[in-house]
Amino acid sequence: MHLIAQLASGQGIEQGGWRWPTEAAGAFINEDIYLKAAQLAEKAKLDGLFMTDVPSVNVDLRNQPPQASLDPVVLMALMAKATERLGLVATMSTSLSEPYTIARVMRSLDLVSKGRVGWNVVTTGTQEVLLNYFPGVLDHSHKHARALEVWEAVLRLWGSWPEGALKLDKAGIFADAAQIQPINFEGKYVTTRGPILLPPSPQGQPVIFTAGGGQYGYAFAATKADAMYSNPPTLDYAKAFWRELSASIRQAGRNPNQFTIYNGIGVSIASSEQEALQRRARLDEMGDPASRRQYLSHMLGIPVAELPLDAPIPAALLQRARPNARDQRSPYAYDLAMKGFTIRQVLAHGPINYHPIFLGTPEQVADKFQLWFEAGVGKGFCVVPDSGLESLTDFVEQVVPILQKRGLLRTEYSGTTLRQHLGLPYQNGFPDKD
Amino acid sequence: MHLIAQLASGQGIEQGGWRWPTEAAGAFINEDIYLKAAQLAEKAKLDGLFMTDVPSVNVDLRNQPPQASLDPVVLMALMAKATERLGLVATMSTSLSEPYTIARVMRSLDLVSKGRVGWNVVTTGTQEVLLNYFPGVLDHSHKHARALEVWEAVLRLWGSWPEGALKLDKAGIFADAAQIQPINFEGKYVTTRGPILLPPSPQGQPVIFTAGGGQYGYAFAATKADAMYSNPPTLDYAKAFWRELSASIRQAGRNPNQFTIYNGIGVSIASSEQEALQRRARLDEMGDPASRRQYLSHMLGIPVAELPLDAPIPAALLQRARPNARDQRSPYAYDLAMKGFTIRQVLAHGPINYHPIFLGTPEQVADKFQLWFEAGVGKGFCVVPDSGLESLTDFVEQVVPILQKRGLLRTEYSGTTLRQHLGLPYQNGFPDKD
Repeated sequence: MHLIAQLASGQGIEQGGWRWPTEAAGAFINEDIYLKAAQLAEKAKLDGLFMTDVPSVNVDLRNQPPQASLDPVVLMALMAKATERLGLVATMSTSLSEPYTIARVMRSLDLVSKGRVGWNVVTTGTQEVLLNYFPGVLDHSHKHARALEVWEAVLRLWGSWPEGALKLDKAGIFADAAQIQPINFEGKYVTTRGPILLPPSPQGQPVIFTAGGGQYGYAFAATKADAMYSNPPTLDYAKAFWRELSASIRQAGRNPNQFTIYNGIGVSIASSEQEALQRRARLDEMGDPASRRQYLSHMLGIPVAELPLDAPIPAALLQRARPNARDQRSPYAYDLAMKGFTIRQVLAHGPINYHPIFLGTPEQVADKFQLWFEAGVGKGFCVVPDSGLESLTDFVEQVVPILQKRGLLRTEYSGTTLRQHLGLPYQNGFPDKD
Repeated sequence: MHLIAQLASGQGIEQGGWRWPTEAAGAFINEDIYLKAAQLAEKAKLDGLFMTDVPSVNVDLRNQPPQASLDPVVLMALMAKATERLGLVATMSTSLSEPYTIARVMRSLDLVSKGRVGWNVVTTGTQEVLLNYFPGVLDHSHKHARALEVWEAVLRLWGSWPEGALKLDKAGIFADAAQIQPINFEGKYVTTRGPILLPPSPQGQPVIFTAGGGQYGYAFAATKADAMYSNPPTLDYAKAFWRELSASIRQAGRNPNQFTIYNGIGVSIASSEQEALQRRARLDEMGDPASRRQYLSHMLGIPVAELPLDAPIPAALLQRARPNARDQRSPYAYDLAMKGFTIRQVLAHGPINYHPIFLGTPEQVADKFQLWFEAGVGKGFCVVPDSGLESLTDFVEQVVPILQKRGLLRTEYSGTTLRQHLGLPYQNGFPDKD
């Protein structure tokens, strides 16, 4: 099993995480929180830490931090220096940056980390973000075509300084300059001459991640990426998705065993399932409980927002409930309601969270990971704590040892680079044709 | 006297610095060299460390590293975490980045450093660099107009999150969102909606530097910047430049006493003047001595490239020499030749270096700084070592104590932010009208 961890805005998946008594309220601007998370993830021998990026204030600042405030490059640099083995995956959107910038920044991070970086290739469609960078109401229908050009240009730039070209011979030969040549990349959306101004890292170049959804994201994952951050709403979805994706990878002439999919999972750990639910109910209260109750009404097709929180939904009303067909998480919410859970408890189970929630004792949470893993959802998971660093600590200290004991997780790193952690060979630029 | 230090490509001003026996040949990709330099500069209580940026391979890689390889943001982040008081000045070109990127990256660095960052505002005209980012043969005649827009947009973005708006009240108030509003900046070249997603640092916002030459760079310095990196070819030029610039600053209704100009100076330190010249002659040999002799011919107007290196220029030839009027450093080269120095010695004095060279014993070098300072070239200097870290160490350990003893340099930091080091008040966004 392969695991990465994620800490958005220095906190967990729950909107109210910054209010949790033992979490740092100002984590979103406190780089030390990220450094501690990276060191925790490394202590647990995880594959890496994953940094998302949403450069805009697209939340209500009255009650929560922006989703990604401190620049990811700044944080990645600090994490690279504060760890020795952990992989570090940074998102840089192909819509917002030029290939030379991406190639240089990622290679710099890869050198500082001695070969532990991944580039999460995404496009940007969010208007709030685009309007921070470009004028007017935008037509970004070209974003996928541009993404392919940026990806190709970045890899060509990386390959433009081959391994072995740097000599550092004090007799007078700095580099074999003949090997370091312009690429003269001319696309429809981006152009860059090159060459890059940095040699390859110990792993060659960063591992290619993607987190994109939709048909383009899927095609990019199947044909070009080494790893993917996936957001399955349910176990059934995750199984079907990996079945299809692995077939598409094979169809593209690539080996699905060398592909790492990380299914995003939220975790809530306590000394009993009941306490985990109470913890989550308290976190719900610290977030935006009114909008959650509204959304639950939408999922069930009945008005529950104004009902008493600590009672089950009345049977007469529940009879009219139907899982909303447009949200695959709705049947889970419906099942919980039918089992007689109170509205507070239904919500505490997390059916309306962005990620599926594994909750309960460390054993129960470990069981859930094992169940999904053995059901065939692909190699891995991205673990997102509920409140923040405290919750990540609980996962690392309490759940990871169980998974290790079961032989599901590594207990030591066998390699030093992220490519080695993922079983990938050295690569710099495009691999030679076989 | 105000000092900053600079280490381009992890080495000094001399092209052959990477070959110097006690310097690291691979300094250009070794972040630890930069961290040591920053810690040295902090130990000496300098104002800061200055990072240039030239994102292209615009040198001959056969015998020297690129001018700025590792991404400056990556290096700045690491230096911010490895120091506590030192100012950190990073170049980000208004031609290559969007305002939201600059505002966010600089504010992230300013937060991580707790208010010690400066933004060096430059435009990019170098074709080698532009071709890495943009197509074809470029018309960048708009670069100065764009620079003004980028500068204004960045300051407006910084100001869009005012001091005090962040509450972090765990009772449920994250921020006073009403204070954090879009700026809706619409220029001819850049647009950005905002707001920024980070609160101000302890100094508010980064100090505005500029290093631009020409009439636009001059006007920007006089009306908008807090500090300037200047490259005077001679003492007379430096005096005249500061006299004019300070008058222009006053004319713009600003206070030249609050403006810090850093005159770029190369230093070569040894236990005697003779040894310093020998050191420099050896460094010359490690660089590209043939092109230096060619350029000396150009400066003197006589062919000296093929003459014996260790003899004075023959009198008959020297009679026909005339200082080249298009290079203000030529009279110095001419004087050295007329004094009977050998060609090797003329070159070792550094008349064709990019910066004036202060060379000799620590006392002699300190005298030179004092002479220039008292001659009225403005407040400060940017110190560039000859070979690299070793040479910077010599400056910090041997010259700085002399300047401190003479009461010319601080012996302790009185403040914690770069604005405080420069005697500037807190500022976030545009200052209120008086």
